[in-house]
Amino acid sequence: MKNYSICMIGFGNVGRAFAKLINRKAKQLSDEFNLSFSVVAIATGSHGRAINYSGINLKKALEISAENGSLDELSTIPIPESIQDFIALSKANFLIENSPVNYETGEPAITHIKATLANNMHAVSANKGPIVHAYEELIALALESEKQFLFESAVMDGAPIFSVFREALPVADIKGFEGILNSCTNLLIEKMEKGSTFEEAIAHAQLIGIAETDPSGDIDGWDASIKVAALATVLMGIPLKPQDVDRKGIRDLTPHLIQKAIQDGKRWKLVCTAEKSGGKITAKVAPQLVPSSSPLFSVNGTSSLVIFKTDVLPGLGILESDPSPETTAYGLLADILNILK
Amino acid sequence: MKNYSICMIGFGNVGRAFAKLINRKAKQLSDEFNLSFSVVAIATGSHGRAINYSGINLKKALEISAENGSLDELSTIPIPESIQDFIALSKANFLIENSPVNYETGEPAITHIKATLANNMHAVSANKGPIVHAYEELIALALESEKQFLFESAVMDGAPIFSVFREALPVADIKGFEGILNSCTNLLIEKMEKGSTFEEAIAHAQLIGIAETDPSGDIDGWDASIKVAALATVLMGIPLKPQDVDRKGIRDLTPHLIQKAIQDGKRWKLVCTAEKSGGKITAKVAPQLVPSSSPLFSVNGTSSLVIFKTDVLPGLGILESDPSPETTAYGLLADILNILK
Repeated sequence: MKNYSICMIGFGNVGRAFAKLINRKAKQLSDEFNLSFSVVAIATGSHGRAINYSGINLKKALEISAENGSLDELSTIPIPESIQDFIALSKANFLIENSPVNYETGEPAITHIKATLANNMHAVSANKGPIVHAYEELIALALESEKQFLFESAVMDGAPIFSVFREALPVADIKGFEGILNSCTNLLIEKMEKGSTFEEAIAHAQLIGIAETDPSGDIDGWDASIKVAALATVLMGIPLKPQDVDRKGIRDLTPHLIQKAIQDGKRWKLVCTAEKSGGKITAKVAPQLVPSSSPLFSVNGTSSLVIFKTDVLPGLGILESDPSPETTAYGLLADILNILK
Repeated sequence: MKNYSICMIGFGNVGRAFAKLINRKAKQLSDEFNLSFSVVAIATGSHGRAINYSGINLKKALEISAENGSLDELSTIPIPESIQDFIALSKANFLIENSPVNYETGEPAITHIKATLANNMHAVSANKGPIVHAYEELIALALESEKQFLFESAVMDGAPIFSVFREALPVADIKGFEGILNSCTNLLIEKMEKGSTFEEAIAHAQLIGIAETDPSGDIDGWDASIKVAALATVLMGIPLKPQDVDRKGIRDLTPHLIQKAIQDGKRWKLVCTAEKSGGKITAKVAPQLVPSSSPLFSVNGTSSLVIFKTDVLPGLGILESDPSPETTAYGLLADILNILK
């Protein structure tokens, strides 16, 4: 039985769900893969940091986190100031990067992943920022250090998007895609279909933790655009920045327009599209009127759907319903296990 | 550059599409995988058989097939009577099994695959029969001979169903699924929604090659049931026969019922479901009234959709639109390349 050590940056909802998942799957990992994991380092933004080479007691870490305490008390060694030094000192096999996404720069996640690869550790991340701001550089670093950098959960949480093409669909050339990739706006429109005002819909989405305090990243289409850019960059081989996406958010969608669509048997959706032609990608995020004959019509609540056009499969759709921190955590675990294959 | 040889059983629409696909992808296979394929043997039911260890001229084989001629003339050696001897004599690395599906016994495909594995060749098949009638036996034989038996195209053509769980989603436990898996009945219902009678709908489906001369395998839910059984057997680890599926076809769906559903904003669909509980699988194929809020609602024409419930992803859907012999052929090629990984 081989034990692999993990360093976690971030111990929020996803980090905690990951800790619970590896605990729940411990027997299956041992039986099927003959391996076990121990988390030897956790760094949080404002709830302390710990390193314990024998493995941090995750039950205790979860308790401390639930009580809003500091993880410092779990550390068995003094903790360095800089996060790069922390990553190096963790001496882990894997880093799991869960810092908050930064649409403009991709930092500090890029710095974390660089430090990881420089220390000969594999990097796994749910963060979209590094993909659209530093994909080529990070993949080059990974190749150089003979380690891997995977990021399944960056788009559609744990649903297999990057891995399905990487692991299961050899020689498939993606010509384009369309989809609904932003849960928050999809939920907001649905609330307005059911009679809420824009403000009521946002208040509801914030209450259930789907919308941020400042929801403009979702509402103005930035989150959808960064996902389109990530898919294009990784799967279609042409680096794209969120700024390259022709982007329009949902601010002009009035409850009146939304009700009118429903009466006509249609629904407004924030639709993402990308199309490759002549070595260039044309990408767009904009509200569209979707008829009931479209697979996008029945993408409800926080579900997502992306349909790829490829040269071998003309229409391959991946649908994810009921996403949660648990599904994102599974994407992180799947990345680790796919690296170990 | 490594060359791999292929023996093909069957040279119908799918076999011919496969021959064209490996030709179209030759440069990409050489560039990305450093490999090439040559088809060294083809056996058909009534259009002859050929073996040529230097590689059969596929352009000629396609011409002969288009003219309804016999492939015998392409053989450079005498051809044995028995198909087992033919397979052995092919000395190929891979067998591609494309004989017609037999719902009751899975033969002769099972015999072909056994002969393949016994001769230390990998077996790849688009045939559902062997999965539901001999899966455990064939996998045991494959293990014994240290070769592989893959069958991605057996359900939903080349869409990644088996491979996505095998290659991309480690430790995901499937608790159940629902879906639309039979293209023919889905198309028939759609034609009736648009005003056709049952008979007119069948005539249309036969004209475009979707329905057989005797369409009862589709209409009575056998094709859907065999697919449900294949998914349960392979992905949920509990062998299921088509006879174990609680099966109801679409014969009771009158144009009146179908029109009434449309007026109510709903659609009749032949829905497949499977649920695991207490080590047993309860599986069903039956017409269901589907509301527009369901992802099954917008599965049009010959498209398919299956949504898996797993312990790590509560709702993961795979959608395939516009299936064709080309998408089935891609599934065969994907299997071969996944074996070679």
